[in-house]
Amino acid sequence: MIFMKSVKHKKDRVVLDTSLFVNPEVRNDFGSTPAEAIKGFFILAEQIPTLEFYMPSSIFNELLNFVDQKNIPGRFLAIVHQKSPSKHELSCPAFLLYELIEDIRDRINKGLRIAEKAVRSVNKFDEREIIQSMRKNYREALREGIIDSKEDVDLILLAKEMNALLVTADHGAITWAEKLGIRWLLPNRFKDYLLSFLEK
Amino acid sequence: MIFMKSVKHKKDRVVLDTSLFVNPEVRNDFGSTPAEAIKGFFILAEQIPTLEFYMPSSIFNELLNFVDQKNIPGRFLAIVHQKSPSKHELSCPAFLLYELIEDIRDRINKGLRIAEKAVRSVNKFDEREIIQSMRKNYREALREGIIDSKEDVDLILLAKEMNALLVTADHGAITWAEKLGIRWLLPNRFKDYLLSFLEK
Repeated sequence: MIFMKSVKHKKDRVVLDTSLFVNPEVRNDFGSTPAEAIKGFFILAEQIPTLEFYMPSSIFNELLNFVDQKNIPGRFLAIVHQKSPSKHELSCPAFLLYELIEDIRDRINKGLRIAEKAVRSVNKFDEREIIQSMRKNYREALREGIIDSKEDVDLILLAKEMNALLVTADHGAITWAEKLGIRWLLPNRFKDYLLSFLEK
Repeated sequence: MIFMKSVKHKKDRVVLDTSLFVNPEVRNDFGSTPAEAIKGFFILAEQIPTLEFYMPSSIFNELLNFVDQKNIPGRFLAIVHQKSPSKHELSCPAFLLYELIEDIRDRINKGLRIAEKAVRSVNKFDEREIIQSMRKNYREALREGIIDSKEDVDLILLAKEMNALLVTADHGAITWAEKLGIRWLLPNRFKDYLLSFLEK
């Protein structure tokens, strides 16, 4: 007797960042407000049974800063699984610690240079302007292109755990996706990606 | 026929930081200069066959800023193994990434507050003094108690890899030793620790 295994495509997985619904440049693909973008997305998504969608709970909470809970349909909750990464089971390669710490060290030094420059320019410019521009430069130097929040780590680790495609525009998250061999896609190509599943 | 296994104590391992030889408060236990402290240490160490000593290569290089290579006896090289951690094989638990990143985020915000305060005080104090005190405060806020260098990561990972006792006075390294279940000892108790092996 021979058991025939049914040929079954394994579902591919996608991890979503908020930018998809919140960032005006991207969400227009799906709808002109966050609430409409959510609807626009899940109308497409629910027609694609071969894809499974995930969002870290922390990212979902961010989304609630832009959309009233009441405007998120129950169907969205069923289609986009909210799940934190298994942070006590996952591990990351040690060499990444080195990269992270060297990167932070460089940025910390850069931040100090920015602060020194600001102090030295007080007598030349208006104090308020100096503080404002210092804040901007400092935040850019210390944060941009780096994973700098719990939410970013959630995205990266969940994508790793699920072996999923990460849809994000965050530079820090993309840099780490590259280091960890995680597939990623910019949100502005995501609608085309979804539509390709419907063409077949 | 019965094979008798010889009862053999497994060697315990110790990972050494430079502070042991360089920090005046500690090295006095072993000698009044770094070179003498090295000699004082290894005269004790070579009498203890049950202990194996390690030092990350990067930490050994730091030591060479304080002691001329010529003043480091060949015997020291034989007793204190220089070895980097296997950084491409080791991994660290993912939850530590969260702690590291949240910690850095707090520090970055603190650094900005310090810079703003400095800018605001320019008209009250001397510019040079302000920059000097800002540097001090900034470095303290952003670096103290944190693993902030490749060398610190080397210490921690080598101790983990070797399942060794870490001898260090570095607050950042001790904090991580605690997180990772690594045994640690302050350098000022290390001579007593070694002597206890000779008393037997």
